[in-house]
Amino acid sequence: MPELRKDPIVSRWVIISTERGKRPMDLRASETPQPKGPEEFCPFCEGNESSTPPEILAYRPSGSKPNEGGWSLRVTPNKFPALMIEGGLDRHGDGVYDMMSGIGAHEVIIETPDHASDLADMPLTRFEDVLWAYRERTIDLKKDGRLRYILIFKNHGFRAGASLAHSHSQLIALPIVPKTVMEELEGAKAYYHYKERCLYCDIVSQEIDDQKRVVAENEDFLAICPFAPRFPFEMWVMPKKHIAHYEDIDRDEAKNLAQLLQRVLRKLSKALDDPSYNFLIHTTPVEMKDAPHYHWHIEITPRITRLAGFERGSGFYINPTAPEVSAQYLREIDVP
Amino acid sequence: MPELRKDPIVSRWVIISTERGKRPMDLRASETPQPKGPEEFCPFCEGNESSTPPEILAYRPSGSKPNEGGWSLRVTPNKFPALMIEGGLDRHGDGVYDMMSGIGAHEVIIETPDHASDLADMPLTRFEDVLWAYRERTIDLKKDGRLRYILIFKNHGFRAGASLAHSHSQLIALPIVPKTVMEELEGAKAYYHYKERCLYCDIVSQEIDDQKRVVAENEDFLAICPFAPRFPFEMWVMPKKHIAHYEDIDRDEAKNLAQLLQRVLRKLSKALDDPSYNFLIHTTPVEMKDAPHYHWHIEITPRITRLAGFERGSGFYINPTAPEVSAQYLREIDVP
Repeated sequence: MPELRKDPIVSRWVIISTERGKRPMDLRASETPQPKGPEEFCPFCEGNESSTPPEILAYRPSGSKPNEGGWSLRVTPNKFPALMIEGGLDRHGDGVYDMMSGIGAHEVIIETPDHASDLADMPLTRFEDVLWAYRERTIDLKKDGRLRYILIFKNHGFRAGASLAHSHSQLIALPIVPKTVMEELEGAKAYYHYKERCLYCDIVSQEIDDQKRVVAENEDFLAICPFAPRFPFEMWVMPKKHIAHYEDIDRDEAKNLAQLLQRVLRKLSKALDDPSYNFLIHTTPVEMKDAPHYHWHIEITPRITRLAGFERGSGFYINPTAPEVSAQYLREIDVP
Repeated sequence: MPELRKDPIVSRWVIISTERGKRPMDLRASETPQPKGPEEFCPFCEGNESSTPPEILAYRPSGSKPNEGGWSLRVTPNKFPALMIEGGLDRHGDGVYDMMSGIGAHEVIIETPDHASDLADMPLTRFEDVLWAYRERTIDLKKDGRLRYILIFKNHGFRAGASLAHSHSQLIALPIVPKTVMEELEGAKAYYHYKERCLYCDIVSQEIDDQKRVVAENEDFLAICPFAPRFPFEMWVMPKKHIAHYEDIDRDEAKNLAQLLQRVLRKLSKALDDPSYNFLIHTTPVEMKDAPHYHWHIEITPRITRLAGFERGSGFYINPTAPEVSAQYLREIDVP
């Protein structure tokens, strides 16, 4: 059983997931990415459904059978989960330390049956399906009273930590709220107390006025390079109107989000020759029904510079590119 | 002039250092490390003193001239500084955003004249000199009233962000306190209010009792794998008695720190075949003269696993190796 442990100083929870563990010398990360080509066996390709745990959700034509071919999207448990769905929370302490059992869900969203496709080039309706699957899984997992946060993220490319080249995203449902989200909630709450306005709504409004950090926008969503970005070409995609929970998007919004997100991913791919990137949905914790101060959004962080120790150990970043420069560069890139 | 910008949500400051900037397509990090061998020109080697800015501090025999050969350690300004030492702070705002000019110091500690040497294999007295140079530079920079924090760190190896193979560390003096240190200060302060004891002192005491996460210790210092480590083989080196500021160490303590730190770096190198690593000194901010709640320490983070987007975006880490396992493995490795 994996264990959740809390750093007593900064209250950061980590998963000690020794089930995934290897002997110390085996830990050294491979320097060689998995080839994107079809040469090697891929458990996410159509026809290889038996190589994954049984599907939890799939979009497939009526009449086709679960865990067989014909699907356009599948969600399965992660074969090497960081957390286990079964068991009690079992919180306990040891002197200054706190821990609990590593309860949670770890799922994989296989975004396409096609090994060579990815989010930037798939048909728009397929992209919309991916966003809808995120929503469906979130709504389902929220029913489990032990879980406090549903974290959805994507690692694209080897440098971003993707271990399989076939396009997929991941969902981790946690019995705690991640530190970064907690910090955003606290910062946004302080602002709300002071101004009685949502800070994210104010950012949306100021960015639309300024235009200089806007990458793209449509009726419902805005993509910007944020004012104080940690990384070159970092982008945030935010709903223009206040929505606390990601899973509250409706079909029209999902369509507009797919349109904007695919557009900015295409721009990024063209600008930097298909760079590795991560994206992560920051949404309101499960237990907070209403959050006038918090506004879900997606953070996209390209992996083009190496992160030095300075940044990892201090939380203080040096970024060689102003967001106004990145945004202009991305705005001017023409994509279909 | 570089600019310091504050993220309005989480109050994280970043340096937008466009002087170091390149065109967007030039940003892609090189995948090829600089060779450790003597084939290429190295500005840090003895004889190449004119390739760096003039030295600020050097340990050299009396009679030898500044910026010429004969030295055993040199400190120079970084040739490509992230911050500029001259100018006023000029704090200002723009709507919800805050910024100030990028004032500060960025120095390089060239730890040895020998291109092939490093901290793990240099003579112990030389290692002690490195630690003493950190102290001397800190004391000098504290006189500048604009600076609030002196951050000392080392990137060892290509994966850790070292751009030059010649062994060196860096010092960045900042007009703000870095976010990670601020969080540690707040966490430690809350504990102190509750218990009237230093949390770090309590950790030292519990770890010495438990022994299971201890890697090595001597009279003055303790090296542990922390209870909730973010990374496999993460280590903290802490003074056993309460000292708030790094620069308050005396000669005997510097000697004992050199002994312990070199010992754990040797163990790490032998355990994982000279892995890339970062270390970073966390110390009390300049303005806090006395800090009964905060205890300086060194965090060593090996770079052996790739960091996925999940971790970068959530502040929530999955670690495949329990610290008890890492510590035992390191304890059992025999080094001179």
